[in-house]
Amino acid sequence: MKTYLDCLPCFLNQALRTGRIATKDEKKIKKILDEVGMTIKDIPMESTPPETSIFIYRKIKEITGNIDPYKEIKIECTKKALSLYPVLKKKVENANDSLLYAIRLAIAGNAIDFGVNKSVDIEREIEETLKKKFAILDYDKFKYYKDSIGKNEKILYIGDNAGESVFDRILIEEMKKPVIYIVRENPIINDVIYDDAIQAGIDKVATIVSSGTSLPGTILNTCNEEFKKMFYNSKFIISKGQGNYEGLSNEKVPIFFLLKVKCSVLANHIGVKENDIVLKAINT
Amino acid sequence: MKTYLDCLPCFLNQALRTGRIATKDEKKIKKILDEVGMTIKDIPMESTPPETSIFIYRKIKEITGNIDPYKEIKIECTKKALSLYPVLKKKVENANDSLLYAIRLAIAGNAIDFGVNKSVDIEREIEETLKKKFAILDYDKFKYYKDSIGKNEKILYIGDNAGESVFDRILIEEMKKPVIYIVRENPIINDVIYDDAIQAGIDKVATIVSSGTSLPGTILNTCNEEFKKMFYNSKFIISKGQGNYEGLSNEKVPIFFLLKVKCSVLANHIGVKENDIVLKAINT
Repeated sequence: MKTYLDCLPCFLNQALRTGRIATKDEKKIKKILDEVGMTIKDIPMESTPPETSIFIYRKIKEITGNIDPYKEIKIECTKKALSLYPVLKKKVENANDSLLYAIRLAIAGNAIDFGVNKSVDIEREIEETLKKKFAILDYDKFKYYKDSIGKNEKILYIGDNAGESVFDRILIEEMKKPVIYIVRENPIINDVIYDDAIQAGIDKVATIVSSGTSLPGTILNTCNEEFKKMFYNSKFIISKGQGNYEGLSNEKVPIFFLLKVKCSVLANHIGVKENDIVLKAINT
Repeated sequence: MKTYLDCLPCFLNQALRTGRIATKDEKKIKKILDEVGMTIKDIPMESTPPETSIFIYRKIKEITGNIDPYKEIKIECTKKALSLYPVLKKKVENANDSLLYAIRLAIAGNAIDFGVNKSVDIEREIEETLKKKFAILDYDKFKYYKDSIGKNEKILYIGDNAGESVFDRILIEEMKKPVIYIVRENPIINDVIYDDAIQAGIDKVATIVSSGTSLPGTILNTCNEEFKKMFYNSKFIISKGQGNYEGLSNEKVPIFFLLKVKCSVLANHIGVKENDIVLKAINT
């Protein structure tokens, strides 16, 4: 997905939000906004939003010296999600359709995104997402692809945010198939990295592998060879969240996108509404 | 009120919104955003938001050649409001407290602001605003000041948006006192100018006078001498909307602000929540 005009003010909002988490110094935050403002003219609009947004996070690092502003927030968020894990597991067990319930939970987890939302009440978000109607629900295809995975094959599950990973773990457990769980290489906003996935207990249910990218989305030309090989050879790819959708929506392999639609640009691109939840298959 | 960091991304949003109304040419809109982005570093943060936002509207004029992008929207908006006028007048008559009901309507009219909101359903906005609880309601003071206005004195009523003026007219009629209705000098977003006030029928109930400013808010050092004289000599000033509040909130004369709070910056400044409605007196 390319960068749209509406993404430009949003970049400035992201800069302000992350800047405030990285430092309390208003002058430094102003400097971040000044420099991001000046860079708008150089943004290649044909690039994906995660690619074009990276310059913001570089500026924040450069100006504040803080290389991982979301570290504490990610840890807290994962801790909170883990405290909900036993109750959520029970709900999945007792659901009419446990797999669909687990998919819903995985999308509810995607709502926990400090990179996009200002503030999030995790429990309320989960409740609301569980009640929502899917705007797109390619569930039959999802089941078909999952069931087709043989003993020696693995599902490629591309994670998005820390905290959300605990919900991914519940879906992974429910699918009852071998899974490779993909994380980002280095800290970028609140995206899940190796340490976050370990804290979420993903290592108990999947093999954790870095895609090699440190962008807030999976942009293949920034990923390592190992990941690209897995990506092109996988029979069943699950991609979580908006950043991964923005990076992968033009790829030519079958992908199942699970996400909450967090902005009007993406909503228009998919043909749904802001805040809708989606299980969307492409190239199937 | 000074410019806050949160205003900076908002300026880019305003540029995009107004740019899209001024032209359909995406390249020109991109150029507007580029230039507004570059100007962020030069914004004097001690100035009020209407002062700092004016460079956006100058850029839009310069790049698109469109000096009055909101002209048609303002006319439509006023037409729509006029079509509701007879019903609203009846509601005021039948209300338990007609003056308070007319104040509420005047604030509901303030919700019709294409400069801030993306899209507005006028009737729904009115319904919602009429049901809202006031976050601040200096109503007794308002009545006291209104009743103190003598035969040879006039209320100074500073208008905000076109369309909203029809609702102002209802409040003016309900106050049953002589009124001077203040408009902007030249077109700026959807703010009310002389022609809009005439279309709304304000000339039937008040004397229409331009403050001389062409900013989207009343900034005294950009106003003409006639207005400044009236402003400092008025016993009872009503100021509508956010732009006027931002410009006048530090003045030392008694002012009654009637508005819907449309952003978090203003909400924090007043000590209320976004979307709250307010009748706030200062220096009384």
